[in-house]
Amino acid sequence: MTETPHPFFARHADTLERALTAITERAYWSAYPESPSPRVYGETAAAEGEAAFRAYLDGKFPLDQPGTGDWVATEASPFGIDLGVTYPHADPDVLLAAAAAALPGWRDAGPQTRVGVCLEILARLHAHIFELANAVHATSGQAFVMAFQAGGAHALDRALESLAYAYREMTRQPATASWEKPAGKGDPLRMTKTFHVVPRGVALAIGCNTFPTWNTYPGLFASLVTGNPVVVKPHPRAVLPLAITVRYAREVLAEAGFDPNLMLLAAEAPGEGLASTLALRPEVRIVDFTGSTEYGDWLEANARQAAVYTEKAGVNAIVVDSTDDFAGMCRNIGFSLTLYSGQMCTTPQNILVPAGGIDTDQGHKSFDEVAAGIAGVVGKLTGDPARAVELIGAIVNDGVLARLDEVAGVGEQILPSRSVEHPTYPGAVVRTPLIAKLGADAVGTYGREWLGPISFVISTDSTPHSLALLRQTVGERGALTAAVYSTDDAVLDAAETAAIETGVHLSCNLTGGVFVNQSAAFSDFHGSGANPAANAALTDGAYVANRFRVVQARRHS
Amino acid sequence: MTETPHPFFARHADTLERALTAITERAYWSAYPESPSPRVYGETAAAEGEAAFRAYLDGKFPLDQPGTGDWVATEASPFGIDLGVTYPHADPDVLLAAAAAALPGWRDAGPQTRVGVCLEILARLHAHIFELANAVHATSGQAFVMAFQAGGAHALDRALESLAYAYREMTRQPATASWEKPAGKGDPLRMTKTFHVVPRGVALAIGCNTFPTWNTYPGLFASLVTGNPVVVKPHPRAVLPLAITVRYAREVLAEAGFDPNLMLLAAEAPGEGLASTLALRPEVRIVDFTGSTEYGDWLEANARQAAVYTEKAGVNAIVVDSTDDFAGMCRNIGFSLTLYSGQMCTTPQNILVPAGGIDTDQGHKSFDEVAAGIAGVVGKLTGDPARAVELIGAIVNDGVLARLDEVAGVGEQILPSRSVEHPTYPGAVVRTPLIAKLGADAVGTYGREWLGPISFVISTDSTPHSLALLRQTVGERGALTAAVYSTDDAVLDAAETAAIETGVHLSCNLTGGVFVNQSAAFSDFHGSGANPAANAALTDGAYVANRFRVVQARRHS
Repeated sequence: MTETPHPFFARHADTLERALTAITERAYWSAYPESPSPRVYGETAAAEGEAAFRAYLDGKFPLDQPGTGDWVATEASPFGIDLGVTYPHADPDVLLAAAAAALPGWRDAGPQTRVGVCLEILARLHAHIFELANAVHATSGQAFVMAFQAGGAHALDRALESLAYAYREMTRQPATASWEKPAGKGDPLRMTKTFHVVPRGVALAIGCNTFPTWNTYPGLFASLVTGNPVVVKPHPRAVLPLAITVRYAREVLAEAGFDPNLMLLAAEAPGEGLASTLALRPEVRIVDFTGSTEYGDWLEANARQAAVYTEKAGVNAIVVDSTDDFAGMCRNIGFSLTLYSGQMCTTPQNILVPAGGIDTDQGHKSFDEVAAGIAGVVGKLTGDPARAVELIGAIVNDGVLARLDEVAGVGEQILPSRSVEHPTYPGAVVRTPLIAKLGADAVGTYGREWLGPISFVISTDSTPHSLALLRQTVGERGALTAAVYSTDDAVLDAAETAAIETGVHLSCNLTGGVFVNQSAAFSDFHGSGANPAANAALTDGAYVANRFRVVQARRHS
Repeated sequence: MTETPHPFFARHADTLERALTAITERAYWSAYPESPSPRVYGETAAAEGEAAFRAYLDGKFPLDQPGTGDWVATEASPFGIDLGVTYPHADPDVLLAAAAAALPGWRDAGPQTRVGVCLEILARLHAHIFELANAVHATSGQAFVMAFQAGGAHALDRALESLAYAYREMTRQPATASWEKPAGKGDPLRMTKTFHVVPRGVALAIGCNTFPTWNTYPGLFASLVTGNPVVVKPHPRAVLPLAITVRYAREVLAEAGFDPNLMLLAAEAPGEGLASTLALRPEVRIVDFTGSTEYGDWLEANARQAAVYTEKAGVNAIVVDSTDDFAGMCRNIGFSLTLYSGQMCTTPQNILVPAGGIDTDQGHKSFDEVAAGIAGVVGKLTGDPARAVELIGAIVNDGVLARLDEVAGVGEQILPSRSVEHPTYPGAVVRTPLIAKLGADAVGTYGREWLGPISFVISTDSTPHSLALLRQTVGERGALTAAVYSTDDAVLDAAETAAIETGVHLSCNLTGGVFVNQSAAFSDFHGSGANPAANAALTDGAYVANRFRVVQARRHS
């Protein structure tokens, strides 16, 4: 069962090697250029990608997978782009049987071949990055450049990172070993041992609406490369990016001589609840999910036959204590609140500021001046509709709008949300960020997640009080990000201790071109698995090591 | 929070390095000599160890941990050795609070210091290996040499293996990294990132009766070295080996300047159910357990706040197809059935033999001749009481006796169990192995575990039928070991495929000095995590990687 690796392994060996170095160093590295510039991708790439995207519209998505009954269309673009793509609506029994049948050949191909094929899938997706970016843009409401970066280049980087971790874990032990134990005066005992990397079974990857690729790729590729066929259940409103992913993955798998049913799309009809149906099936042994706390908790409690990896809601916070760059701080926080209308799971929600104000390079600033400073930046960034929509994109779904309605009566609005006419897409639903002022006692409000263009500037007694509130809220509800601004090392240390003890990643004194809601593949971990916002991190050893098991056979040499 | 490693790290650096090489190669290696010979351990070691053991008897075990109320004595030696050791019966609230209070200093000490201190604990335990061996012998019913090896040297090897895996996982990413991202014509973005290894919380290690150290050490040390304080809940009948472990661990922790409450003994009163009380506490974030399927499943279903690692029951099987060394095969299987009265979780239970017999180097052997060949070896090994008890030891508890009673009416006995007078310990409960013949249709009987000196020779239609029954029983109930005897490569391959697909480790054609129920640290994996007998393997990356999380902090350089 040891085979020569497929030539795709040699083709991508340098990329793999570089990625393995990157996860060891966790310094800066990226494999897929994030600039959509023609100087990087060529003069025709953008137009070709857009044409490929448009070719999907108002038609049946080209996917030759088994079990297709009727076809379903469930997407509605936040930009009002008329999609009309229909997807195969497959019988779960047929899908799971097809996935299971594809497993043995893939398992027996071994880690080298599997990682080679997965790297070729990434290369193929990269060749179609503009097509993918258009699909992410149209379904998530991200502005195009962000969709290209987060949904294209960065998603591919995260996938590669995940492959590197999985490859390292799978090859911790050799494929075979010779064991020779001294036996006193007699001949040594000699055994030959074979270590098989064995997948858990069928994997289910459940996509989300906001980041259909970025949040799905790490788990999807970690499962696939460790030998598990993957059934991809996209969010009903963001099917196309994952359908494209499945399409090219199947193409590469077939080219490499494998059963393309190693990757299958499980699009669902409205209200079908297909994720739950699939997640409880005994064949499904891995589930990856990004989305609500309620559903993530349900999966963890009920999909007991599977290893379940969840990223859920959280309450990201910023502790503002003092700064030597008030303008930079406000610019940085304001940009973080503005990007993609605050619809990132990493967007700060709670900005904790002492009621008595803070010391800055511009002298003492009152609480209201700090709030106004941040609100001013957001206002400026969103003042001009044409420029605004390139940052804030569109509102991903009605849930966000409902929260905007609900928050209208909460606290004192420092910056109200405005509806903006999109210059290109007349049907787009665009809202600017809302910022409200709250007292520390309103923890019933700010202690839960308000995903969307909603943030709170919260007046606290002091920085220690701010830190205590950060500990309380993150401890209870979790968070993916935290930030602190202070010129005092003791405060930075206290914030770092609070971050360690609540298990949240901390950014200190960001005033330039790095933002708290952005994490860089190969360097920053996304989520920690150490608080209620996620039970795993993207991407570390724990995220991949339990997606396969090692089974050994031994015999006398 | 980065500190210079404690000098224990340098003291044991060579051992760690060698262990890291061993887990990469998985060839033969051992750090702790398994021979109790005076030539290895010195002329006085055995007597001193026994004296240290005897000094514990009929007294309060010397443990200065907090929260002690009354003292409890729950042990009854299978050999009838009068123990009379009493242990502190601690208030769970006090124990857990003390453990939690010990966490921050240990966490902040970092991976190097922690692994150095843990290696010193192993060295300390090794210096007391005869004391430990006497304790394992007296409480488990293992013959002394086995107790020395499995309960002493091999347990320490498994602990070291676990430390090596954990160290490798914790140091996958650097403690700090410099991140520098090109930013077009401007200055690059520069960040300094710190990666903290953060423990999950308090760990609970639940010991078993048969292998109080061997089965407990891997999880216990994996938890401790990754920063988690450990509460050790021994089996009520096998407290002393773990009390000794906790005693020396606390001694070393204190010497190194840490809170000794990083390791605490949680001895229980009869019928108290302390494991369940502790396992459900929110502070407890890791549970390791070896024991019954029923209780392991309960822990997995209920201790939802914790990462739960279980080793449970299984039905180990041997497929006998053909052999070119009939005598060697019978000797090997017979020895496996005899060792420690079949009370190992790795002892074969079901020997699947075609009803039409098998081809051997001694010509065709009928089913009955195969059964008689194996039974003959067991009979011979147990014929002389003085020699017998050095192999079979004593019966660990009444549960085993009850199964022996129950099995008396099952199938056709090929070899009945006999009661044996122990030449040294008049109060010892000693029984020789029973072998019964069953038809393939008796799966209701052989399809569940009969831990103890009970095995079945099962007549099947053919080797494919044997393999199908192996798949069925292991698939449903799990197994830690499987073996096959065949001169036909196609059969060996089919057995290996069955092993892979049911997730059980396979031994092929063992006829010499390696036995299916023995696994060698640093080379053989114990359990796979891929069938119902265990949800984890000792020891691999998945076993350790989720006992800690990584939390990062980043700031501009």
